[in-house]
Amino acid sequence: MLDTVPIVRIYKKGKGKPKSIEDTVVVEHALAIRLDKKELVTLLCSPEKLEYLAVGFLCSEGLIKEKEDIKEIVLDEDKGIIEIATAQHGKTAKDEVSKRLIGSSGARGIDVGSFGRQTVESTLAITPVEIFGLIEDFIHRSEVFDATGGVHSAALCDTRQILVFSEDIGRHNAIDKVLGECVLNEIPTDGHILVTSGRVSSEIVNKVVRSNIPVLISKSAPTNRGVRLAADLGITLIGFVREGRMNLYTHTGRVIIDGS
Amino acid sequence: MLDTVPIVRIYKKGKGKPKSIEDTVVVEHALAIRLDKKELVTLLCSPEKLEYLAVGFLCSEGLIKEKEDIKEIVLDEDKGIIEIATAQHGKTAKDEVSKRLIGSSGARGIDVGSFGRQTVESTLAITPVEIFGLIEDFIHRSEVFDATGGVHSAALCDTRQILVFSEDIGRHNAIDKVLGECVLNEIPTDGHILVTSGRVSSEIVNKVVRSNIPVLISKSAPTNRGVRLAADLGITLIGFVREGRMNLYTHTGRVIIDGS
Repeated sequence: MLDTVPIVRIYKKGKGKPKSIEDTVVVEHALAIRLDKKELVTLLCSPEKLEYLAVGFLCSEGLIKEKEDIKEIVLDEDKGIIEIATAQHGKTAKDEVSKRLIGSSGARGIDVGSFGRQTVESTLAITPVEIFGLIEDFIHRSEVFDATGGVHSAALCDTRQILVFSEDIGRHNAIDKVLGECVLNEIPTDGHILVTSGRVSSEIVNKVVRSNIPVLISKSAPTNRGVRLAADLGITLIGFVREGRMNLYTHTGRVIIDGS
Repeated sequence: MLDTVPIVRIYKKGKGKPKSIEDTVVVEHALAIRLDKKELVTLLCSPEKLEYLAVGFLCSEGLIKEKEDIKEIVLDEDKGIIEIATAQHGKTAKDEVSKRLIGSSGARGIDVGSFGRQTVESTLAITPVEIFGLIEDFIHRSEVFDATGGVHSAALCDTRQILVFSEDIGRHNAIDKVLGECVLNEIPTDGHILVTSGRVSSEIVNKVVRSNIPVLISKSAPTNRGVRLAADLGITLIGFVREGRMNLYTHTGRVIIDGS
């Protein structure tokens, strides 16, 4: 469930010196479900109770109804594959799931690994004071729009200000709205900063990489896989920016710490 | 972005009498993206900036790179369909997205509407004191497991206690783990209660309906579509159970209010 990663913790001026420490992050696991020898879906999940997850998923999808529908379950934890054989004959479950609906916080068909990806290169540099300033603006704008407390926000920024801001019930959607606005209005994303209210999973890092954005800042925590992918792909990942502190997870060289 | 629904607000004993009021909920919209006349995907989202969302989604998926790749965008807001024509020839984008990955908070191929669904019927009755008690236990268990603050929990309960508890980085996964455990261990879900830490969107209500669970309790808020579906399908939906109060959204008859 939990993993540790090395981070640099930075505090607001006067609140403490930067510290290199180990911090806890949540584990993001990929589980491929194969139903009757056909690949059905890959779920990103926590790595516990994987048999229950697979069976519950099939049940929620209406592919099985009860225990008797299941003939065999074989879990290969190392490979992240679970094979489920059902008692039904001939019916191809895959067809039923192929018409896919993407939920409000849902991931999309992005590959999980970093294999073959270009890393993001940029000489962008930012100071902690600028990061705290951006996050303050970001939170202020979010509060103005979000009366219900259930909405995610995302923004494209330079080191001084928010350039594009969007919100949505889904953290992926909020980011896609920002990136779509940049495409349609020809606002460059290269060498800029993306701020998100939501957790940074591997899919979010992939999104940022595709738009060649070198710095990703989140109010929330990353997953271990998000951290690993950011490290592999040249992204400066900054998380948990709240209450006068922040965590630098990867490629910390772009953050200019003045030793205060 | 926001909608209003009639609710009954209940307070902990001594904190106030039940009130019938209008409350604000966030809007959940379904947007079908058609790319070069082929249905690509349906996103559940907030209903603003839909062109940006569709273009950003295509961009995040690697299906387009820049504005020049887009020939035409036609949005039909009433039908919830956006048609995007690209400048590329012959390449079927759909194939590239069909290998789907379901993210940590991702929805699955569940239909959005309630058409043709059986409603959940149950004589289950529960009191506010029991609901507050269940939520207290639930939050306590969640805190024990969740050191990082980024994990969702779900539980199957009767009116007195938690029977099955699970957690996951995804709110859908946490619920599926509970339902899968019930299937494999032959724990009946009929006439029981599901508690979730996460927002109640239409997909979550659909999941609960499939398991014939009449009462759904959330620490968080529902979407307007979640409320509508719960009303249509016979689910008692209780949300925002926190700080000594709760909102009853639908089928309130199962909650026995003693007038305190």
